[in-house]
Amino acid sequence: MDLSHVSQSKVFGGWHKQYRHDSKILNCPMRFSIFLPLNATDTTPVPVLYWLSGLTCTDENFMQKAGAFRKAAELGIAIVAPDTSPRGDSVPDDPQGSYDFGLGAGFYLNATQEPWKKHYQMYSYITNELPKLIEKNFPVTSRKAISGHSMGGHGALTIGLKNQDQYVSISAFSPICHPSIVPWGQKAFRHYLGEDKSSWSEYDATELLKAWSLKRPILIDQGDADNFLEEQLKPEILQSVALQKQLPVTLRMQPGYDHSYFFIQTFIGEHLKFHAHHLSESL
Amino acid sequence: MDLSHVSQSKVFGGWHKQYRHDSKILNCPMRFSIFLPLNATDTTPVPVLYWLSGLTCTDENFMQKAGAFRKAAELGIAIVAPDTSPRGDSVPDDPQGSYDFGLGAGFYLNATQEPWKKHYQMYSYITNELPKLIEKNFPVTSRKAISGHSMGGHGALTIGLKNQDQYVSISAFSPICHPSIVPWGQKAFRHYLGEDKSSWSEYDATELLKAWSLKRPILIDQGDADNFLEEQLKPEILQSVALQKQLPVTLRMQPGYDHSYFFIQTFIGEHLKFHAHHLSESL
Repeated sequence: MDLSHVSQSKVFGGWHKQYRHDSKILNCPMRFSIFLPLNATDTTPVPVLYWLSGLTCTDENFMQKAGAFRKAAELGIAIVAPDTSPRGDSVPDDPQGSYDFGLGAGFYLNATQEPWKKHYQMYSYITNELPKLIEKNFPVTSRKAISGHSMGGHGALTIGLKNQDQYVSISAFSPICHPSIVPWGQKAFRHYLGEDKSSWSEYDATELLKAWSLKRPILIDQGDADNFLEEQLKPEILQSVALQKQLPVTLRMQPGYDHSYFFIQTFIGEHLKFHAHHLSESL
Repeated sequence: MDLSHVSQSKVFGGWHKQYRHDSKILNCPMRFSIFLPLNATDTTPVPVLYWLSGLTCTDENFMQKAGAFRKAAELGIAIVAPDTSPRGDSVPDDPQGSYDFGLGAGFYLNATQEPWKKHYQMYSYITNELPKLIEKNFPVTSRKAISGHSMGGHGALTIGLKNQDQYVSISAFSPICHPSIVPWGQKAFRHYLGEDKSSWSEYDATELLKAWSLKRPILIDQGDADNFLEEQLKPEILQSVALQKQLPVTLRMQPGYDHSYFFIQTFIGEHLKFHAHHLSESL
């Protein structure tokens, strides 16, 4: 068995479960959580929404705080929430112990710089190792969608954009839309990818939108009372690129909402419906 | 102003807010959380559900993990979540630092023993000081219902039973139904109330049901995969008293569910509907 069982709780007739496994790509043990609706069985497998969390989070934050399972159970969608970085004593962390770089802040990229590159390969983990593991061990189909929050919104947008054959729909809450020009992104990219900024575009949703075509729909919700909006997130720049190229990007500014899980709770049902619609379309 | 503002987040069109105040009854500063639905205004005040949390919790656990606001917003009910004990450096804690007695474990009673009685007066705080503060400062009516989980389920049952003019309906998840005969209850009662067990019955839902009439409905949900069920909770004894006296107590055993917030999440919508029905009845 590739997986060791950590915990399980029944919820809305289905199951929330946590597992550990040894990641070959990340060179460390990793934990993830999965929600399986009641109707997920070997003879009736269900599609999967991958959820990428934000800075400081683990596999637990979304599962405990988003209130997503009622709707996911109703729609018959599994949800997988990975951790936000490699973990363990052997994994290097920011020596300054900051929250926005190192452990809990993997930025869903493949690091090319020392001492990060041995473990910080979250892009390959999310797009390759983890879905293979999930599809081998659980009653799910290969139909996938992707979503996330903040740093995880950046992850969902960049991973979704670069793997449009793999993810049928993409959504994000309060994503870091243009990491190359904001403090969170610049700090992480400088360490993980080096000073050569040409390598940064590969992990910048706005730069990817400029360069790539988009055949999958993107839904973004952003609160206008979000303290990070102006300095870190920049959805208006991503939106202007999308408008110019007439790409299927919907950005909804939600008046009065902040950066918290209370915001996510409010709109996660609509994101699940959005993904369910695309997950159920014939290929 | 009696209250100092701690935080606020918009959620489902309403607001989740946290406040601090100086409690005269508890002799310490206290924090609480309140959810106010969109329709709560000074000209259209709404009724309130008081939620009492379990061991180790604060005002935050239910608000972050129960996924209750979608339904509360729809039904037009405010929710108030107090802390689970007095707090602060001046408040004595269990010298052994256990999780089930002292800070985070006030058991919703009025302590009579030293050194606890100066601060551990949660019964009076919940039934008297807190609702007065809420009704003075927020757009709510005096219509109240009460619910809670585990130790907070014990709190909801005992407080609801003893104050049937104040709370129109009572519910609980996985409550400690007969604290006088289980380890959690015996440990707390011995310290807070002393060795004389005659004083314990006043805070024991099963003993209260034996002695009192019940004009308010009680709804209890209990998971049958709850690790604490057999040793600590004893709903079957409470139910047998209710059946014998033909009291309006509904105990629902929920197959496969455990003691966690995943269980609460699953059934909180039904509890809110139950309370909304009784809160909207004419007196």
